Amino acid sequence: MARSAPVGELVARARAGDARAVARLISWVEDETPALREVMAALAPDTGRAHVVGVTGPPGVGKSTTTSALVAALRRAGRRVGVLAVDPSSPFSGGALLGDRVRMGEHAVDPGVFIRSMASRGHLGGLAWSTPQALRVLDAAGFDVVLVETVGVGQSEVEVAALADTTVVLMAPGMGDGIQAAKAGILEIGDVYVVNKADRDGADRLRRELRGMLSLADRPDPGWTTPVLATVASRGEGVADLLDAVESHHAWLTGSGELARRRTRRASAEVEAIAVAGLRTRWGGVGHDHLELLAAEVAQGVLDPYAAADRLLTGPTAPESG
Amino acid sequence: MARSAPVGELVARARAGDARAVARLISWVEDETPALREVMAALAPDTGRAHVVGVTGPPGVGKSTTTSALVAALRRAGRRVGVLAVDPSSPFSGGALLGDRVRMGEHAVDPGVFIRSMASRGHLGGLAWSTPQALRVLDAAGFDVVLVETVGVGQSEVEVAALADTTVVLMAPGMGDGIQAAKAGILEIGDVYVVNKADRDGADRLRRELRGMLSLADRPDPGWTTPVLATVASRGEGVADLLDAVESHHAWLTGSGELARRRTRRASAEVEAIAVAGLRTRWGGVGHDHLELLAAEVAQGVLDPYAAADRLLTGPTAPESG
Repeated sequence: MARSAPVGELVARARAGDARAVARLISWVEDETPALREVMAALAPDTGRAHVVGVTGPPGVGKSTTTSALVAALRRAGRRVGVLAVDPSSPFSGGALLGDRVRMGEHAVDPGVFIRSMASRGHLGGLAWSTPQALRVLDAAGFDVVLVETVGVGQSEVEVAALADTTVVLMAPGMGDGIQAAKAGILEIGDVYVVNKADRDGADRLRRELRGMLSLADRPDPGWTTPVLATVASRGEGVADLLDAVESHHAWLTGSGELARRRTRRASAEVEAIAVAGLRTRWGGVGHDHLELLAAEVAQGVLDPYAAADRLLTGPTAPESG
Repeated sequence: MARSAPVGELVARARAGDARAVARLISWVEDETPALREVMAALAPDTGRAHVVGVTGPPGVGKSTTTSALVAALRRAGRRVGVLAVDPSSPFSGGALLGDRVRMGEHAVDPGVFIRSMASRGHLGGLAWSTPQALRVLDAAGFDVVLVETVGVGQSEVEVAALADTTVVLMAPGMGDGIQAAKAGILEIGDVYVVNKADRDGADRLRRELRGMLSLADRPDPGWTTPVLATVASRGEGVADLLDAVESHHAWLTGSGELARRRTRRASAEVEAIAVAGLRTRWGGVGHDHLELLAAEVAQGVLDPYAAADRLLTGPTAPESG
């Protein structure tokens, strides 16, 4: 419980909602600072209040525009809003992200809004390690709603989306449409579906297809009737309905007990990622080059990888080897 | 060492190069079959011979066409070739993959070529877990060269690319070009760079830019002069030079000792992934719901995630809880 002054002060300021302290703590998460252990211990009692809403979908569907419109609607309703834009720091993806961030600029001067793009250094386990801890900072800082915008490409981003209380999946007409959605497995992850750019050709058809496929899909929550909405987020059309749906889902989560289940699942992923990161450090650390020695034997065909993993888990026997 | 008949028989057939046995074992990898432990122990002595070549790059640069052209060139040189096309089973990506596989069909009837698209169920740790084990099967089955084609979107695919002995990075003109490459971090991962679709406008400029950026980049192997080639893979142009560069790199790897280092690194990732998967199973297994109990306390704010991870790593204290 003994806390060095700067950590304690920073945590106190973040809990009071100070944006610069919040930004600093999220940088610590990105930088994988050892002091996080102390920070998270101090923040724990203040967590569990924010409604975490994931916004995901393929590139080009209008995720940032929709996020921005949702922020505006939430602000009109008097809510404090955090936005975490998760950039998988991916080679080869990226692209529109910077431009989109600029578009969110209208909210940048609003003290009730905190916007942050997050990358991952990827040393300790990437976004699965860092995203839940950044959410924890925003939660403890008293944001009523935290929107997590994921680029929606690849497995890890889907895992990040799965950390939300409510996941909004965006689609748009003319992007491969329904069959693509079925193939991509997005029919299992959304609580609310939105066909954005609904003024374009094919929007109604896509909406019907999505409804049809959702009715056949193996949906995780039979008690929740999954809406398929239409928006033109760039003009704000349909955004009020989207916010209604998100809030209805929150009410349903609370009433059904599903909220506690989802949060336990999120905490489970968070604890596991921290534990695995700790083990990785131990296995690869100075004086514990056990993994590298075993790997060399595997590379030479002397040992098979399963036998090596068994030995790794029984730990370094003695510090006798260089 | 006691092996049940079917496993032993299958392994023996795979080691003899029987394509159906190889396919079956790779399915076992995808399905995360417990028998893999026995399979890998039996295959270990026969591994370490194949030259593993990663082919990666952003969507649309012609990865499958280039892979197919490389296969043809390798076959003319009398080599047996395995192709592992890694599909991150990604929500939202996918797309051209199926069509590309069809285009590879010309090699499908050649017994010296084994082609396999690989997905990941993602239970035990995704492609980081399954790819090295699939490579191990192809290696033990006696393929001289194994081409690993990754979709090249996202962090996990870059990790997969890093498992290769030689990584070929493809670019094409008109896709955002040089600055995009620098931003995406691909300047650190390639051993051979290729500007494909070199008959298009901007190819020469892209090649010059790449050369310039590579000369400034923090390259991992100062002893290797990284070539930047030009190809029109769809017409086979430049493919012989590409194969030459790949083979030169292999000779350099062997001569410099870097091959052993890279293979130790690959084995290290493989062993670690197996160890982590084993721990995950233990933490989440029946009678070991320790993680879920801790996660519930974290979700309630009673415990912080670091303290929970500490308790997880000290193991379940006693099987007293339901």
